[in-house]
Amino acid sequence: MKQYIVDLNSDLGEGFGAYAMPCDEEIIGLVSSANIACGWHAGDPLIMGKSIKLCQSCQTAVGAHPSYPDLMGFGRRAMKVSPAEAEAYIVYQVGALQGFCRQHGAKLQHVKPHGALYNAAAKDLQLARAIARGIRACGEELIFLGLSGSCMEQAASEAGLAFAGEVFADRAYSDDGSLVPRGQAGAVIDDEDEAVSRTIKMIQEGRVVSQSGKEISIVADSVCVHGDTPKAMAFLKALRSAFAREGIEIAPLGRVLEVRR
Amino acid sequence: MKQYIVDLNSDLGEGFGAYAMPCDEEIIGLVSSANIACGWHAGDPLIMGKSIKLCQSCQTAVGAHPSYPDLMGFGRRAMKVSPAEAEAYIVYQVGALQGFCRQHGAKLQHVKPHGALYNAAAKDLQLARAIARGIRACGEELIFLGLSGSCMEQAASEAGLAFAGEVFADRAYSDDGSLVPRGQAGAVIDDEDEAVSRTIKMIQEGRVVSQSGKEISIVADSVCVHGDTPKAMAFLKALRSAFAREGIEIAPLGRVLEVRR
Amino acid sequence: MKQYIVDLNSDLGEGFGAYAMPCDEEIIGLVSSANIACGWHAGDPLIMGKSIKLCQSCQTAVGAHPSYPDLMGFGRRAMKVSPAEAEAYIVYQVGALQGFCRQHGAKLQHVKPHGALYNAAAKDLQLARAIARGIRACGEELIFLGLSGSCMEQAASEAGLAFAGEVFADRAYSDDGSLVPRGQAGAVIDDEDEAVSRTIKMIQEGRVVSQSGKEISIVADSVCVHGDTPKAMAFLKALRSAFAREGIEIAPLGRVLEVRR
Amino acid sequence: MKQYIVDLNSDLGEGFGAYAMPCDEEIIGLVSSANIACGWHAGDPLIMGKSIKLCQSCQTAVGAHPSYPDLMGFGRRAMKVSPAEAEAYIVYQVGALQGFCRQHGAKLQHVKPHGALYNAAAKDLQLARAIARGIRACGEELIFLGLSGSCMEQAASEAGLAFAGEVFADRAYSDDGSLVPRGQAGAVIDDEDEAVSRTIKMIQEGRVVSQSGKEISIVADSVCVHGDTPKAMAFLKALRSAFAREGIEIAPLGRVLEVRR
Repeated sequence: MKQYIVDLNSDLGEGFGAYAMPCDEEIIGLVSSANIACGWHAGDPLIMGKSIKLCQSCQTAVGAHPSYPDLMGFGRRAMKVSPAEAEAYIVYQVGALQGFCRQHGAKLQHVKPHGALYNAAAKDLQLARAIARGIRACGEELIFLGLSGSCMEQAASEAGLAFAGEVFADRAYSDDGSLVPRGQAGAVIDDEDEAVSRTIKMIQEGRVVSQSGKEISIVADSVCVHGDTPKAMAFLKALRSAFAREGIEIAPLGRVLEVRR
Repeated sequence: MKQYIVDLNSDLGEGFGAYAMPCDEEIIGLVSSANIACGWHAGDPLIMGKSIKLCQSCQTAVGAHPSYPDLMGFGRRAMKVSPAEAEAYIVYQVGALQGFCRQHGAKLQHVKPHGALYNAAAKDLQLARAIARGIRACGEELIFLGLSGSCMEQAASEAGLAFAGEVFADRAYSDDGSLVPRGQAGAVIDDEDEAVSRTIKMIQEGRVVSQSGKEISIVADSVCVHGDTPKAMAFLKALRSAFAREGIEIAPLGRVLEVRR
Repeated sequence: MKQYIVDLNSDLGEGFGAYAMPCDEEIIGLVSSANIACGWHAGDPLIMGKSIKLCQSCQTAVGAHPSYPDLMGFGRRAMKVSPAEAEAYIVYQVGALQGFCRQHGAKLQHVKPHGALYNAAAKDLQLARAIARGIRACGEELIFLGLSGSCMEQAASEAGLAFAGEVFADRAYSDDGSLVPRGQAGAVIDDEDEAVSRTIKMIQEGRVVSQSGKEISIVADSVCVHGDTPKAMAFLKALRSAFAREGIEIAPLGRVLEVRR
Repeated sequence: MKQYIVDLNSDLGEGFGAYAMPCDEEIIGLVSSANIACGWHAGDPLIMGKSIKLCQSCQTAVGAHPSYPDLMGFGRRAMKVSPAEAEAYIVYQVGALQGFCRQHGAKLQHVKPHGALYNAAAKDLQLARAIARGIRACGEELIFLGLSGSCMEQAASEAGLAFAGEVFADRAYSDDGSLVPRGQAGAVIDDEDEAVSRTIKMIQEGRVVSQSGKEISIVADSVCVHGDTPKAMAFLKALRSAFAREGIEIAPLGRVLEVRR
């Protein structure tokens, strides 16, 4: 029997100042990699340090989650920044998080762009390359975590960075492997069982059925999960149970890529 | 004849976005160490990278210049932050600058707190200790550059960090070695010749005449200079000429401390 | 029987961007005046508009809650700003809120400085005067809501502004009428019944027993209440029940001052 | 002889904190309307107040210059905000400036969106409508100053606002009346004499020659001028001389629209 392995990643430390994200403690023990906000869409220096310590206590791998400079919009709004700006913004935010990693003796495993920056980089190769250069500058051992099969994969490869393909359990895919934009009919898979079985198919078969009904190839190195609502937490637990049943091992990105190599 | 050696430090990269600090290029070749703004009182990611490259082209040593989070007040306003906040703020800003150092193959030599944070840390040992912990977390080889003889010196020593004592050519000193606050009569030495000869005395004799007329001990590892006005540039050139005449060598902090050890 | 009347005020709209303050809807119907954050310690333009509409739907009077520029510290950290800065900061934030009042046809009733700005202005007459000038510039009909008996009262009077004295149900008072600082033993009255009876005494007798046991005079135009925890909500309901029992009318500040005049 | 009248508008108060825009004093006496930054791309509360006083001393009409929330990018970067956000952002910034107008007894004449917000609103009717609603909420007497013939004109009209069409002396126009984007060949008219004569033609004939050589209609209520470089100042003076020679009166927007009505 073939052994399957996958990473579960979730965002972490997305509070700011007096604002807390209360589910951080709950979710962190259930995922293998965390994307820690770096202060530009969320997160502040105190929270960044605490998030790293939380990862250490749960043996969750640490990642950086850099963003456009848009605290008011939580980094979810498209913004036209130049490649030079994007590269420098990555270096700034990842560098800051690396400061806290060094302080607490943690290792930075990966970088995943946040929100609108992620969405733009999935389609804009120049932007993806700028991000890849920024990540590479912060460490050639860092893994670029991005949308499976997107521009980010090519950019990572060109920059000599390992790339991990991320998939979404509850999102519909277009024929070209891109996500059906939220807001379009059917963009979100509401049925929990269907979302679980789609995810397992992506991991075991490397395939997903697109919105038009076509079977398309997809690499599932990591599954994006959320812990910000009770429903999201319930789904995460259902996903973990299904993985256990199917013998799918959950492991941090670094380990997943090692096995695949 | 005894050989004297001293560092000249100036702030660098204190523009922000569309705002430039036009004298950066002029001054940087005339000093041996630069304190680069890290985005909180001034500086942005593009400027931080450019500033490091400027230092490299002039063989000026690179330092970080972290601040309170106060862009609107240019970091010059006292702010009551907790020791935990201060420590984390240092790690964040210095970590970010280290990202750009890594990117450009530069070495970070020192950290000098900016403005109101510097002034507070000169008198508040708890704050100075928090800053020292933050610097130490970023690298045990980093030099803490602070007011000569102040709380920062004790804090650096406790944290196992090298400390470099900074002196001011154009400021009056109190008997306890603290600066006479700006705004008090005689706080600023306007006469250029007097400022030069005071500085030379600090370097050669390790002494300065306080405002009350008393000779007090002072360690002059580095002299703080400015390049933001034509008058400041003229003074800097006068200082350098006087150093040449007196055989005082100008060298980066790291070298100065090495010689003294 | 003498008729007593008092205002209950609470903060409102203290979310920011993606961050919500979930109890806003619950508390707003239980108070007579609301202090709406103006974007500097909390609040953003969307939230400001919504908060005003919420006040209108509950017939709660609208106030502005300006702050130091410190989103990361939620405006709770002391900051040394000049009187000219403080005045301009008030005009900016109150002016912005007045924009939304105009948009929704609401009337701005009062201004209450937030957090560390409030605490500083209670003891620093120069700062209090600057705030009063800022409020006055925004409207001579605006009520300055501040700590009862503090510098703010004198400053309001000098500026020709109506002043409303705020009292705290759950805080101990010093002999001079100032609050015992949080962190000192006994600063917070934990016993709910005691807090209620102290508040009623302040309203009915204009007196409170200080921490040293002395009866001191205090004017209770408005009682500060919170809705950010279940306990705070329970206390607010207990306070309202006690007021009903004692025949103390709850009314917005404007009406309270009118009755007293 | 027909009497021609036009407004000259320039940006004002675009410093921030320690950063000054040194030409403000020079240019302000040479224009009839000023667009004052409101703190989001530039400007801070102290500068806003000073800018209004400067306008008063020069009898220059006061306008608001609201922007996307992007200090680091000086408001020049496209940003995807919702119509509700855009409307609220206008109310916030214009409201804040109105606070300072009230303080100094000045009248707000107009609102001109800044930078990337202006460019987007010229082509995006939904956005332009949101801005118009925001302006209208701040005062139905306010003039919406925007690109002549653009979406903003329609949006202003729908909202019941007076609209003033802005033209650019040194920019090439496409056949549809839009500006040829900077970066395209020939987008900027470098020849000063040509720029002056084009401007006069726009004012006297209501026509401009497009890049393709076609004569197109254009309404020139206001000419946008700059004072941030010596060359810009020289051009402004040349323009004023030519106006004097041609008998073209320079007057604030309000007066220009009055004459045209």
